[in-house]
Amino acid sequence: MEAARPLDALNNARNKRVIVELKNGKQFVGKLKSFDIHINTVLDEAEEMEGGKTTRKLGTIFIRGDTIILITPQ
Amino acid sequence: MEAARPLDALNNARNKRVIVELKNGKQFVGKLKSFDIHINTVLDEAEEMEGGKTTRKLGTIFIRGDTIILITPQ
Amino acid sequence: MEAARPLDALNNARNKRVIVELKNGKQFVGKLKSFDIHINTVLDEAEEMEGGKTTRKLGTIFIRGDTIILITPQ
Amino acid sequence: MEAARPLDALNNARNKRVIVELKNGKQFVGKLKSFDIHINTVLDEAEEMEGGKTTRKLGTIFIRGDTIILITPQ
Amino acid sequence: MEAARPLDALNNARNKRVIVELKNGKQFVGKLKSFDIHINTVLDEAEEMEGGKTTRKLGTIFIRGDTIILITPQ
Amino acid sequence: MEAARPLDALNNARNKRVIVELKNGKQFVGKLKSFDIHINTVLDEAEEMEGGKTTRKLGTIFIRGDTIILITPQ
Amino acid sequence: MEAARPLDALNNARNKRVIVELKNGKQFVGKLKSFDIHINTVLDEAEEMEGGKTTRKLGTIFIRGDTIILITPQ
Repeated sequence: MEAARPLDALNNARNKRVIVELKNGKQFVGKLKSFDIHINTVLDEAEEMEGGKTTRKLGTIFIRGDTIILITPQ
Repeated sequence: MEAARPLDALNNARNKRVIVELKNGKQFVGKLKSFDIHINTVLDEAEEMEGGKTTRKLGTIFIRGDTIILITPQ
Repeated sequence: MEAARPLDALNNARNKRVIVELKNGKQFVGKLKSFDIHINTVLDEAEEMEGGKTTRKLGTIFIRGDTIILITPQ
Repeated sequence: MEAARPLDALNNARNKRVIVELKNGKQFVGKLKSFDIHINTVLDEAEEMEGGKTTRKLGTIFIRGDTIILITPQ
Repeated sequence: MEAARPLDALNNARNKRVIVELKNGKQFVGKLKSFDIHINTVLDEAEEMEGGKTTRKLGTIFIRGDTIILITPQ
Repeated sequence: MEAARPLDALNNARNKRVIVELKNGKQFVGKLKSFDIHINTVLDEAEEMEGGKTTRKLGTIFIRGDTIILITPQ
Repeated sequence: MEAARPLDALNNARNKRVIVELKNGKQFVGKLKSFDIHINTVLDEAEEMEGGKTTRKLGTIFIRGDTIILITPQ
């Protein structure tokens, strides 16, 4: 069956590790725990990455949706 | 028959390869899987392009609509 | 009869060639195919222009309304 | 009678020449044809001005409201 | 009686001279004629000020609310 | 009793002196007179501060909510 | 039981110390007192941090939601 709406793609990524890229150039990697229609997003076991390296380990993070450019499975 | 509304043009591009250009200057190419009224967009087999060259292969990506400038068939 | 609302002016330009200027300084020229209340706009036979010269031929493009400054018949 | 709401002032300027100043520093002068609650605005016989000089003659232009800083009768 | 809502303070300033400061650093002084819930604002006998000096006399101006930082009685 | 919603905290600060910090780096100090759900805010006996010094005395000011970063009791 | 929505994660952090990172690069640490659907957020015993050091002690702060990038338990 085809994923007809963009949030279906995020639903398929639930509980999987994703990369979240922000408008300020930062990148977070973690397990996608939840999201809403504003794309507010919660990651578990989250790490901040820069140039492919982990710069901070953060545990659970809430990211405000309007700061997000893209989300992709790791 | 004429496409009377902008989202009709996106509907015609579904499952075809499109170029998505973002406000931050980045360009993604991939198969248009889905979009919504906010222009949140999901591409499959997505690649990040810079200066006509692939800089990253990303698989499925969810792009937040408010970061998008334009979408055009490849 | 007078055009009383701004979208009437866009309606009058349907299927005619228009110039679309974006917040990032880019300019697109093409046949105005459709638009909506967000000013999401679709151009056919679109070209990207810089300094009066065509820099890219793009065919059909969907432009997200919030990136647009102005639209004017060519 | 007093103009009690801001759009009344725009209504009074209908079919008169106005200056429209944009967030990007550009200035357009033309006959105010129409506007809506988003301040989307259509000018007829429009000209782009810089430093008091006409830099482009544009005819009819549709300006997206969110790019506008101010509108004032010429 | 206490002014309980922000727009009450603007109401109290109606027909008085106010300073309006914009996000782009510009300052307008004029008689507050009208405003709405978006803080779209009309000034009469408006002047643009820079460094305490009048740089332009503008008559009536309509200022789009989302460009405004603050309004204060002169 | 616990303050369950953010606006409760602003309510507790009514008629007390607060610091308001704006996105453009400016800081205003004054008595919190009123606010609304957009965080449009009115201060009485307001002063503009820079580096801990008063740079302007302003009386009553209306600050548009979307320019505010934070509000804190002085 | 699984946290299905992003605000559940903030609810779990209530009355615990959190780090709030803003779009302007600033970081606040404090006890999460309240938040709403706009992510307007109140911290108690708040401190501004820069480079891991406390630069200001602020007590209670109200942070406007649209300035926030992320919230994470300390």
